[in-house]
Amino acid sequence: MKNKSENDLIARIERAFGGTKSHALRVAMGDDAAVWRPPTGIELLLTCDWFLEGSHFLRGKHPPDAVGWKCLARAVSDVAAMGGHPRCFLLSLGLPRVLTGRWLTDFLHGLERASKAFHCRLAGGDTTHRDRVLIHIAVVGEVPPGGAVLRSGARPRDEIYVSGTLGQAERGFRELRETRGMARPATLALRKHLYPEPRLALGQWLANNRLATAMMDLSDGLSTDLLRLCRASSVGAILESDSLPLASVAHTPDARALALHGGDDYELLFTVRKHQARALPQQFQQLRLTKVGEITRDRKVLLRNAKGKTVPLFSGGWDPFRRSR
Amino acid sequence: MKNKSENDLIARIERAFGGTKSHALRVAMGDDAAVWRPPTGIELLLTCDWFLEGSHFLRGKHPPDAVGWKCLARAVSDVAAMGGHPRCFLLSLGLPRVLTGRWLTDFLHGLERASKAFHCRLAGGDTTHRDRVLIHIAVVGEVPPGGAVLRSGARPRDEIYVSGTLGQAERGFRELRETRGMARPATLALRKHLYPEPRLALGQWLANNRLATAMMDLSDGLSTDLLRLCRASSVGAILESDSLPLASVAHTPDARALALHGGDDYELLFTVRKHQARALPQQFQQLRLTKVGEITRDRKVLLRNAKGKTVPLFSGGWDPFRRSR
Repeated sequence: MKNKSENDLIARIERAFGGTKSHALRVAMGDDAAVWRPPTGIELLLTCDWFLEGSHFLRGKHPPDAVGWKCLARAVSDVAAMGGHPRCFLLSLGLPRVLTGRWLTDFLHGLERASKAFHCRLAGGDTTHRDRVLIHIAVVGEVPPGGAVLRSGARPRDEIYVSGTLGQAERGFRELRETRGMARPATLALRKHLYPEPRLALGQWLANNRLATAMMDLSDGLSTDLLRLCRASSVGAILESDSLPLASVAHTPDARALALHGGDDYELLFTVRKHQARALPQQFQQLRLTKVGEITRDRKVLLRNAKGKTVPLFSGGWDPFRRSR
Repeated sequence: MKNKSENDLIARIERAFGGTKSHALRVAMGDDAAVWRPPTGIELLLTCDWFLEGSHFLRGKHPPDAVGWKCLARAVSDVAAMGGHPRCFLLSLGLPRVLTGRWLTDFLHGLERASKAFHCRLAGGDTTHRDRVLIHIAVVGEVPPGGAVLRSGARPRDEIYVSGTLGQAERGFRELRETRGMARPATLALRKHLYPEPRLALGQWLANNRLATAMMDLSDGLSTDLLRLCRASSVGAILESDSLPLASVAHTPDARALALHGGDDYELLFTVRKHQARALPQQFQQLRLTKVGEITRDRKVLLRNAKGKTVPLFSGGWDPFRRSR
């Protein structure tokens, strides 16, 4: 729709969220900055994520409702990975004029549902015109002082765990590419690709019980992300290829490769001291927790197959500067 | 440079800032989220801004050093407009591979100088590959509880003030467009366009002394921004055309139009109770403060010329959804 002004757009976003002020969020949209009164005695978590047409989603295939859900879900997943609680977010949009009608309505609907589900309120943002959709989400969360679980706390002999199953979102992305027109969450894999669930409750539980020594979310694929965790902790690891929790529907020959290198799962990768591992349930709120390897002193990160043969793990995950999808 | 990975890029950004941790910023780059311990008894300011190639700057004309300075300066200006202190920021970059060499070095140099000048530390961000440069800055600032100056506090009979001179940055943008190749800050106007100075000290002084009843920064032009302030405060205004502080070098016939509608000045627009106006100096730290009009009960926003004739003020400033530069 032409001749929509930026003011109109901001008013529509505010309406979609049914007003954005609260006791803690004294000023949200419509001023130079949002004003938020944090509780006393907490530490803040600050994180942000791009979600760009062509790079992170396809306008003709990803339903706008899923785009709205997912852009917030993946940013909130970083808060889950620190063991924190999301509180509010800034939404920045670059939109083509043709998308300020129905597309925007559906996008805001998905975003608003995610905002409610994750208890993360819209606090403000910035809007501009652009030929291809640009989305940027910045999230503010909180943790008790000293309570954030970093990537750097893994120690030799710690056990390595992942939540849920791996590779399913990447499979969903393949299914989406083979779909004609707009995708629907018709399969579990497509559902996981379109509507990922950040593991907030698990992250908070692991942090509150001081069980995880290091933690991060799996956004770029296990092979890439485990290397990052090991580098941050100055350790190595042995990953057991046969232990990877493949999705139950994963009967394709490359299920293991998908689990190793597939991105977008937003499961948690975490390490636990050997003597504390017994405190871990096999499932946390219906979410499987699987031991996939062990941290080593030697800084090499190795993959061991069922026959006991080890090979160096190579980073085969998503890196926007090395390849494009 | 090809084959640069995202990890390399993040490491370079961190090096350019000489390490980013501090006592308050316990974790900055390199983890899922930054961890910041805010002082007790404050309110947080949250604001963000796009800075996009083609929309907000031109790759061939704006020096990367100025792009780095300005992207942070304009986001920090929103904190100044609330009377707050900037504390830290998240930098999100979308970069073409050809710009990850010298361009990025110069960009980070300008950004790092701005970060030092505004006492606003890099806390994290996100990087991705993109054909045209995308920059997004999210800033976290702070104010004493209840101390933020909003847009909504203007009351009838309040006097309207602006800092500095108006229209100079827009003139600088014209000079830049007429330049062949990369612009240099050769004139005052170009300097103001390329290296704007957020009015942090003035904003903080007005807030601390409870002098400003409403305040915002002039980013989109006085005519657009005054209308926004009046709408937020449910009031009108009479703007005195002859009182506008034109830049001293502004001898072009359209100097007044530039002062009314030109964007990017990042001066402060604020209102003061009539009886408190005498507490305002004519200059604050060499920065001129000029009365340009008065708030009215009637919601119309009018422009009055030297002969006393009034016309409705139309919003002629920058709106990305109505026109492009």
